[in-house]
Amino acid sequence: MLMLIREGARFSPGCSGSAVWAAQYPICKSYRLADPKSHLTFGDELKRIGYKGGVPANHMLNPLSAHFELHIEQRRLLQDSKKKIGVVTAIQGIRWYRVIIQGERAHAGSTPMDVRADALVVASKIVLFLEEKAKETSAVATVGVLNLDRPSSNTVPGYADFSIDLRHPSEAVLGRLESSLEKYLDELAIKNGKVEYSLERTWRSPAVDLDNNAVASTRYAATNVVGKSCFMDTVSLAGHDSALTATIVPTSMIFVPSKDGISHSPKEFTSEEEW
Amino acid sequence: MLMLIREGARFSPGCSGSAVWAAQYPICKSYRLADPKSHLTFGDELKRIGYKGGVPANHMLNPLSAHFELHIEQRRLLQDSKKKIGVVTAIQGIRWYRVIIQGERAHAGSTPMDVRADALVVASKIVLFLEEKAKETSAVATVGVLNLDRPSSNTVPGYADFSIDLRHPSEAVLGRLESSLEKYLDELAIKNGKVEYSLERTWRSPAVDLDNNAVASTRYAATNVVGKSCFMDTVSLAGHDSALTATIVPTSMIFVPSKDGISHSPKEFTSEEEW
Repeated sequence: MLMLIREGARFSPGCSGSAVWAAQYPICKSYRLADPKSHLTFGDELKRIGYKGGVPANHMLNPLSAHFELHIEQRRLLQDSKKKIGVVTAIQGIRWYRVIIQGERAHAGSTPMDVRADALVVASKIVLFLEEKAKETSAVATVGVLNLDRPSSNTVPGYADFSIDLRHPSEAVLGRLESSLEKYLDELAIKNGKVEYSLERTWRSPAVDLDNNAVASTRYAATNVVGKSCFMDTVSLAGHDSALTATIVPTSMIFVPSKDGISHSPKEFTSEEEW
Repeated sequence: MLMLIREGARFSPGCSGSAVWAAQYPICKSYRLADPKSHLTFGDELKRIGYKGGVPANHMLNPLSAHFELHIEQRRLLQDSKKKIGVVTAIQGIRWYRVIIQGERAHAGSTPMDVRADALVVASKIVLFLEEKAKETSAVATVGVLNLDRPSSNTVPGYADFSIDLRHPSEAVLGRLESSLEKYLDELAIKNGKVEYSLERTWRSPAVDLDNNAVASTRYAATNVVGKSCFMDTVSLAGHDSALTATIVPTSMIFVPSKDGISHSPKEFTSEEEW
């Protein structure tokens, strides 16, 4: 049973094939995902290469009985502990957001601090709010992209947009973080009447505990192939197709070592024997 | 007496002609200022258009006895109060900086918060530090440009650079703000051993009180030309060549109205009568 999966390098977000299959993402929306460079859409490109086939990407029309996914570890736990197999018991949840802050563009010299609506000041507050909340809840929160509109060193920024990447093993914790972020944005907009914001959740990979039976059968296979001392239970910190299939069918993941934990890089390496 | 002045639109920073004349900026450095698009230098372009002449840009070799500068107001105080002339009594000081934060690029999913060296988190702390300090001291502080290196929504930023524009009517206050900024950057770098920074002052227009006699003679002329009720004393919030000449010779500035305070824009307008 082969599923169409993809990394999201050209058409972000990733794992949209399995997200559509698992009814976590609308198929029409996935077809409209556009390559930021060429503006070609995922749907058109699938058609062009002959992959927009007749098999429906739908867990009901095209069901699986179970899903087992082989993947490199993307960390160095296996390498450091000299294990050959990691049996994944849970996958941490991921939520991506795009935030837009609309303030008021103004002259840096003649605009007193107390009448400003500086979009970068607001964005900075959110960056630090996320850092604090993530530390409190053992989540990870990252603002990896931040853009200003027509940046100029003697102009108060009137517009900022940025990404948020939020991860935690518990959906409940992620939900509470999302609520507190929204509440904080409301507070900032109330405090400065000239500030408006929009918060859009652009992608989600749910936090899941993998199926006990599927995990047990993976452990059993690992014992037979590499022996009891050469595998370990582990948790996935990255997002995977399995996080989506696991919402529908018994799912398990098998990790193999990845050299120095490097992934999504030309330096990514796993030897043929390890694979 | 004509001086070569320039706005800094092509070769930043501005006012470098008067800065060189007033011994506030080395002439060799000004010749090396490069057009960011073509990479042609100011020195080469002056030569090409025949302006790299024989008159030295040096207040000792080419002295002035006084400097009077006519300028549009760039605010709307004159327009709103229906005055025709603003007699400038002081020019607020400006300091420009470029800050580079070097942290550690890392995976957003697998890097716990407490081992990160997130360059954007550090930059955000500085943005808010500047906002707080500016409010405390009635200064204005602006971060108008901020860049991340290879921004990616699932990557902890390892590098950020940004501009700071700092203004206050007192050089002493600006000096204290600069020291406190440096101290704060040191603290941040000590707190997180993986963070390094560089802080470079890229430009300075000193805060000056204009010469009493030069200002008095401008007031006298204004009284004669437009009458006592049609001029007002005012303070300049933008940088000007006069801020540099004032460090050497008696200097005064004459402001005329600028429509709606708009400047450095195609909409900038002052009628012929007002001028």
